[in-house]
Amino acid sequence: MITRAHSEALDRQDPLAGLRDEFLLPEGVIYLDGNSLGALPTITPERIRSAVDKEWGEQLIRSWGTAGWFEMPEKLGDRIGNLIGAAPGQTVVCDTTSINIYKALHAAMALRPNRKVIVSEAASFPTDLYMVEGAMGSAGAAYSRRLLGADGDDLADLLDGDVAAVLLSNIDYRSGVVHDMERVTRMAHEAGALMIWDLCHSAGVLPMQLDASGTDFAVGCTYKYLNGGPGSPAFIYAAQRHHEDARQPLSGWWGHAAPFAFERDFRPTAGIRRFLCGTQPILSMKGVEASLDVFEKLDLQAVRRKSQELTEHFIALVEQHPSCGALELVSPRDADQRGSQVSFSFEHGYPVVRAMIERGVIGDFRAPDVMRFGLAPFYLRFADLYDAVEVMAACLDDQVWHDDRYARRETVT
Amino acid sequence: MITRAHSEALDRQDPLAGLRDEFLLPEGVIYLDGNSLGALPTITPERIRSAVDKEWGEQLIRSWGTAGWFEMPEKLGDRIGNLIGAAPGQTVVCDTTSINIYKALHAAMALRPNRKVIVSEAASFPTDLYMVEGAMGSAGAAYSRRLLGADGDDLADLLDGDVAAVLLSNIDYRSGVVHDMERVTRMAHEAGALMIWDLCHSAGVLPMQLDASGTDFAVGCTYKYLNGGPGSPAFIYAAQRHHEDARQPLSGWWGHAAPFAFERDFRPTAGIRRFLCGTQPILSMKGVEASLDVFEKLDLQAVRRKSQELTEHFIALVEQHPSCGALELVSPRDADQRGSQVSFSFEHGYPVVRAMIERGVIGDFRAPDVMRFGLAPFYLRFADLYDAVEVMAACLDDQVWHDDRYARRETVT
Repeated sequence: MITRAHSEALDRQDPLAGLRDEFLLPEGVIYLDGNSLGALPTITPERIRSAVDKEWGEQLIRSWGTAGWFEMPEKLGDRIGNLIGAAPGQTVVCDTTSINIYKALHAAMALRPNRKVIVSEAASFPTDLYMVEGAMGSAGAAYSRRLLGADGDDLADLLDGDVAAVLLSNIDYRSGVVHDMERVTRMAHEAGALMIWDLCHSAGVLPMQLDASGTDFAVGCTYKYLNGGPGSPAFIYAAQRHHEDARQPLSGWWGHAAPFAFERDFRPTAGIRRFLCGTQPILSMKGVEASLDVFEKLDLQAVRRKSQELTEHFIALVEQHPSCGALELVSPRDADQRGSQVSFSFEHGYPVVRAMIERGVIGDFRAPDVMRFGLAPFYLRFADLYDAVEVMAACLDDQVWHDDRYARRETVT
Repeated sequence: MITRAHSEALDRQDPLAGLRDEFLLPEGVIYLDGNSLGALPTITPERIRSAVDKEWGEQLIRSWGTAGWFEMPEKLGDRIGNLIGAAPGQTVVCDTTSINIYKALHAAMALRPNRKVIVSEAASFPTDLYMVEGAMGSAGAAYSRRLLGADGDDLADLLDGDVAAVLLSNIDYRSGVVHDMERVTRMAHEAGALMIWDLCHSAGVLPMQLDASGTDFAVGCTYKYLNGGPGSPAFIYAAQRHHEDARQPLSGWWGHAAPFAFERDFRPTAGIRRFLCGTQPILSMKGVEASLDVFEKLDLQAVRRKSQELTEHFIALVEQHPSCGALELVSPRDADQRGSQVSFSFEHGYPVVRAMIERGVIGDFRAPDVMRFGLAPFYLRFADLYDAVEVMAACLDDQVWHDDRYARRETVT
């Protein structure tokens, strides 16, 4: 049996234990949702304050030059590139993940004009599928979508000479299953298709070699494990070899070869900046910048090691607890196949997650019955997980699903 | 002759003089570029600090509900709607102006499927023209563009049964010329086309009646006269009558009827939220929210009155000064035809603007030879304009264009 004392001992041996000081965490809360919104880095408030008071308030419009606002999409992009195995000049921070998916899909479709199928995954985060629909609908020809897990359970069966692009998440948002980036990219290429990876749930916690994998395009968000702040801008990567020919229809002035010459016709700039469109939200970009300073100090291999130890520990704690017997592990049991999250399915998952939040343990619920716990290795302690499972067990013992306060209310707009 | 004493007297009589206290302006600077980046409202730093420290840092993911983050696009949109004459439920704050132009164009093209021409204006801010190209290119049929000022000087000559949509700025970014919104919209409608207005240079300083004008779609930015902060998110308006049928291809999860049900297929939500796509940058949205609190106290008719008085004053000061004889007024002489800016053309406009900035008077330059001064009526004083013209005259007397420091360097990426 793993005890709290044993968990505390793991914390004392943890080489990353000191990292917790780089984050401001509320008292009395165990935060297991860093894969929805990362925690606040300690240096961020002052950075944003300075951007507001000095860069905006005092320097005003001059800050586009003097404070380097204009170069932020590329500068931050290169620093994210460093975390995902992308050489400089191939990544920019801008817009939202959904919009960057649209750009990548259009670029891929234009590079494979005679192919009219997009392959994705039924279990994708829904916006990926919705953007596939949007991109197909605006592509001016009859495209169709094939979904892994719905139209076939084996990617090989879905790939043929009609496939223009494959869009997949390298870590599944719900189960945490990891796709083998190199193998899948090779499969796509062997079928003549281009590969687009969604890195939303992996950037910052999973070491990867985007360039070496042969990936064509990638997108991801900065507000989950990258701790950039609520809704901080996303990123997009395009492999160097596509820069000359890649076109995307969100052709705003930030992607123009001479943005201040005010030419009448669009002329895409060389390089990755052609994936930019309009002016970015600088204050939110500053959150990304501050957080990336924390990542400069990190060894991503050590982060991955701790991430795997945390998920192992959490699974063991849940499975050893007599009150948690009804929970079924959804995430892979093999730590190498698993992201930095652990999910369990449980009939009453929704009320249990709600009750846990009320008792200070913040996790997440994903329809239909998945309790999802994101274990950010930057600021979580092994003892936190011990305490979290105790709270979970108490909610199960209390059969909180009989309490109307935790009844499920679907947000419908 | 207008003297400084006379200018000071105008400030003493100005009913909006007290508004200056609502903004934090740097010492020793006269800011005539509020139409590029608005100044920092006094309440904004604390609002953003609180969003960072409390909403993000302490409440973490819970703030999507408890702090109302999820509703911000609509709530802020309705408040902007109030400034542009749009009833609630038709405006959302999201993404960038360029991206919102793309959405509006696609929606308009889909509503007029048998028409394959977009009319815009040669003198438009370039991103508008670039987005027309991008939207036409992704519309799946051979569209073409007709430009007022290039393909004809009279809008009537450009309108016929082939025109799907007309996209114009109601205030020209360079000259400040005001289009008559009602008249132009009526002309577009009489030709069977839909009308899209770009309000970037008018929202917040020009009273307008968007609903009453019959406008179909509108977009605008929040970081100019709306003082939302650098790169703060843009807005998009769609008239209620189009909500049922309007579709736009950036169909992300925020525009889905049940965003948290994680359905596999896109189903647009009812109402204006179908123009949303992905997660918005909350810290930058907070800047918009704070600034709109300042606007709540304002009478836009009084703002327009002062705006016209300021531009009249500035033109008179320049034209009476013996050193400024070489400058030619680009903006309309009739204040009713003019936005809240004054532009002059001058061969050496670029070095003069650079030198003025170095001497504390921040204006703007727009190619090829336009010196542009945005006169934000919220925080500018008549005496400021007197002082600004003195600095301009000194730069002209000094023939600063002989100084290499002010030589023009085109930003080319």
